[in-house]
Amino acid sequence: MSAIFSDSSAATLRIIPLGGLGEFGKNMMAYETDDTIICVDTGLMFPEVDMPGIDIVIPDISYLLDRASKVKAFILTHGHLDHIGALPYILAQLNAPVYGTRLTLGLVENSLRERQLMAHADLQRIDEDSTLDLGPFHVEFVHLCHSVPDAVGVIIRTSVGNILHVSDFKFDPHPVDGRLTDEAKLTALGDEGVRVLLSDSTNSEVAGYTPSEQELEQVLDELISKAQGRVILATFASNISRVQQVINVAQKYGRRVGVTGRSMVNNTRMAAELGYLKPPVDGLLTPDQMNYLPPEQVVIVCTGSQGEPTSALVRMSRGQYRHLRIGKGDTVIISATPIPGNEKMIHRTLNNLFRLGADIYYDDLFDVHVSGHGSREDQKRMIELTRPEYFVPIHGEYRQLVLHARLAQEMGHAEDHTFVVEDGQPLEVGHDYIFRAERVNCGRVLVDGLGVGDIGSVVLRDRRHLARDGFLVVTIGLDEETGEVLLGPEILSRGFVYMAESETLIEEAKEVIWNVLETHDSTGAVLNHVHTALADFCYRTTRRRPMILPLLVEI
Amino acid sequence: MSAIFSDSSAATLRIIPLGGLGEFGKNMMAYETDDTIICVDTGLMFPEVDMPGIDIVIPDISYLLDRASKVKAFILTHGHLDHIGALPYILAQLNAPVYGTRLTLGLVENSLRERQLMAHADLQRIDEDSTLDLGPFHVEFVHLCHSVPDAVGVIIRTSVGNILHVSDFKFDPHPVDGRLTDEAKLTALGDEGVRVLLSDSTNSEVAGYTPSEQELEQVLDELISKAQGRVILATFASNISRVQQVINVAQKYGRRVGVTGRSMVNNTRMAAELGYLKPPVDGLLTPDQMNYLPPEQVVIVCTGSQGEPTSALVRMSRGQYRHLRIGKGDTVIISATPIPGNEKMIHRTLNNLFRLGADIYYDDLFDVHVSGHGSREDQKRMIELTRPEYFVPIHGEYRQLVLHARLAQEMGHAEDHTFVVEDGQPLEVGHDYIFRAERVNCGRVLVDGLGVGDIGSVVLRDRRHLARDGFLVVTIGLDEETGEVLLGPEILSRGFVYMAESETLIEEAKEVIWNVLETHDSTGAVLNHVHTALADFCYRTTRRRPMILPLLVEI
Repeated sequence: MSAIFSDSSAATLRIIPLGGLGEFGKNMMAYETDDTIICVDTGLMFPEVDMPGIDIVIPDISYLLDRASKVKAFILTHGHLDHIGALPYILAQLNAPVYGTRLTLGLVENSLRERQLMAHADLQRIDEDSTLDLGPFHVEFVHLCHSVPDAVGVIIRTSVGNILHVSDFKFDPHPVDGRLTDEAKLTALGDEGVRVLLSDSTNSEVAGYTPSEQELEQVLDELISKAQGRVILATFASNISRVQQVINVAQKYGRRVGVTGRSMVNNTRMAAELGYLKPPVDGLLTPDQMNYLPPEQVVIVCTGSQGEPTSALVRMSRGQYRHLRIGKGDTVIISATPIPGNEKMIHRTLNNLFRLGADIYYDDLFDVHVSGHGSREDQKRMIELTRPEYFVPIHGEYRQLVLHARLAQEMGHAEDHTFVVEDGQPLEVGHDYIFRAERVNCGRVLVDGLGVGDIGSVVLRDRRHLARDGFLVVTIGLDEETGEVLLGPEILSRGFVYMAESETLIEEAKEVIWNVLETHDSTGAVLNHVHTALADFCYRTTRRRPMILPLLVEI
Repeated sequence: MSAIFSDSSAATLRIIPLGGLGEFGKNMMAYETDDTIICVDTGLMFPEVDMPGIDIVIPDISYLLDRASKVKAFILTHGHLDHIGALPYILAQLNAPVYGTRLTLGLVENSLRERQLMAHADLQRIDEDSTLDLGPFHVEFVHLCHSVPDAVGVIIRTSVGNILHVSDFKFDPHPVDGRLTDEAKLTALGDEGVRVLLSDSTNSEVAGYTPSEQELEQVLDELISKAQGRVILATFASNISRVQQVINVAQKYGRRVGVTGRSMVNNTRMAAELGYLKPPVDGLLTPDQMNYLPPEQVVIVCTGSQGEPTSALVRMSRGQYRHLRIGKGDTVIISATPIPGNEKMIHRTLNNLFRLGADIYYDDLFDVHVSGHGSREDQKRMIELTRPEYFVPIHGEYRQLVLHARLAQEMGHAEDHTFVVEDGQPLEVGHDYIFRAERVNCGRVLVDGLGVGDIGSVVLRDRRHLARDGFLVVTIGLDEETGEVLLGPEILSRGFVYMAESETLIEEAKEVIWNVLETHDSTGAVLNHVHTALADFCYRTTRRRPMILPLLVEI
């Protein structure tokens, strides 16, 4: 296990968080020497509330594109969208081999196939025992427990020491697939020496250890054993372990299991094909069977745990789901925690489910979910096992990184050996130094429909303005010779006032425009005057500030 | 204490939740007989995420306006905005005497004065010992603990029995003002007989008793005693008890206290004038003093616990607060729980505060807030003391009402003596019956700037559409004689694509329009064809669906 360097002259390593998405180092991390870059993870984020109309957000990889020939690998730690979801967009711009475990690549293939990118992609399967030589980097892996199977941490042996990139993990003594986080390998690496540990900060606000999946299975056992009618369990589509748990418990009580929701069905099928999910002996229910089998013989696993408007659970809660009607006697379990920002949608779904008369179990009431991320004690254990020289918290918003860094310091880690770095902030590591290097270009790219990156701050600002107060377009046609008004002013408006009941207001607005036209004959300035006068009029009469767009045409 | 009926012939009582705001019975409840209506509370709600541009939401009182001469009173239980905030709007339409305790009226007066409605209003001060005869109703009060002082429950003695309307409450053994929830009066009323209990369901998802304010004071004591620099505590502007606690602890450790944020300053001043807040012996700090006094001598109470963009704390977190710069060594305490929907804004504020290097204590990490609402054990205790014949959970979203109703049933309350009613659903109570009567007109009114109720579903739908995909206005001028195109097509667009970089797209869109114009000469139908062709073009090229508004003008 001694370090092997294919290029021992590369005396400096740059560690560059390139995610640009506000959770630092989560979505993409680059490791760079003079001649080589390898990237760990290529994730997406979902848009914030102030990004209306945006579908997803991906990292800006212009830093990589400027150095495209150096980029030797995209290494994926596990199959969650915030770690793999940007891959199709990135491969379309910059093709390099993609390394991932079998299940991770299975999840990647689904999304590449949807975008006709499979022929293009060079997918290389690894497992926790694989070793890779990528330029000056010798790369190994370590198995980690998480809420999706087949997750790994990445060990990068470099000329300046061993880097351990611990992606999402927890220490679960009883994981669903029986495969523990590999503490022996972590300890051995710690014995050998870890120059820099980068570790998951998601749950650095949560005290204690994250409970085991086994405890959750006991809760599911209790709820399913006492349920009278159907049991419907909603969770994340990627939570294959949770699906396995439901299958285990359902079989114990002689219930059959159906899976519904497009992404849930795809993931379940793929995981079963690859052997990561053991389907029920009598197979999964068809949509028809879910409905016509006696309720007490049915368990359904579905999407919708975040209240997503088109998901299976939300359609069920509204009585708009063709295959199934939830009613009194049914049991609904929401086995997920709300992602911040989704609370209102989840509450609406819960209210609707309660209206249907079902028994509902959810986070606020009952421990029907365990996190896939280690809590503060798990985080401490990772540091204890690996005893790094330098510690870099990753995967978290700024406050979570700081709390994780402070946790390391409470354990005796020196403050100047702990680095909280934001996206675009490289760390430069040499044999006898480490420092924050100059920031690099890094940011986020908004995807809206087919447009990748064409929506920027101007369009978003306009959308927010339009959402708040609507718009008013004023068209005025002037005789190009005389300047006489031949046409209009015509006012077209939406989102400002209810036009059908605002005739008086619109007539008054036209008066305001006529006054401007009569007192200003320079056509150059008249647009500005119309804008100002109309804005004043709107604010005075309504206290609203619609977007005002005067259009002057010469005829 | 025997019942007195001014009109014993009124044999039927209607209980009508008129809030219309999704938290049933919270914002306004009407009690109606043949000739009299009294209302309890007149609250507002803040807009949901899908109501862009809306300032506040108030109940639709058309049911009351249709029976205006019967309305004898607005009775206010306490001074929180979700119970008093719609009063200025309602009094402007329907003037009736307003009854409230001293502090509640103090808080009402602030908002009436802002809208020049004080001359108009008939404010009648009551206390927990007051009795009122309002037509057939004999009204009494009972003191309740809550997070604002001077809260009361309303006892309405009617010809069909005693109604107890318990607004927001908890059983706090050690409230800040020392005034306990009046269990003796509740018990006595229970002995006498409660026909219907209506009780607060806010915390029916929370197990146990709500902790005492005293426990919180111990936490504040611990944090303030060990703080090195300034202490900044953010809470709700109405949480006068919390301000008192901070003053108590600050004085103990020789610190002076400043208050900042407009609503916080107004409420504190008013509460001090009325004797509900005991200011520090050496007075409150001026803004200047907050900054130039040594940090270890200063505690600041401010607004911003919900991450409100213009609040004092948020401006401090961005370094945009004139009077104060937060830095390393300072302690920030967020003493409030996030209102669902505000999580993201709060997280942003926390991240910014962490960037400034301060020590931050907030809900996720530390018990720095206690709720003003009783948890499940408090709710049970209220039922135990008053032993109602019928139970109606109020103040909560649907799921919370159901959970509260089920709690009563677990205590042995018969299911047919428990009524979960939504807004607009009256209960009719006679001597020997109770049933759900026909629904009445009830809904919500949106306030946007000066407009009260002019924004409806059409404008909101347009705003959401504009937010998602923007708009495209197409102007075409035709010769009114020949139909020849004299002008345009001109395309004006915002929020759809970035116009400065979309020349090609706009030129192509004009081509699409020309094609339509060339192949359709009936001006009547041409607008529809332009709309369809452009919508197809936009979706095909961008997968977006902007609002398309063709404008045909004849010249």
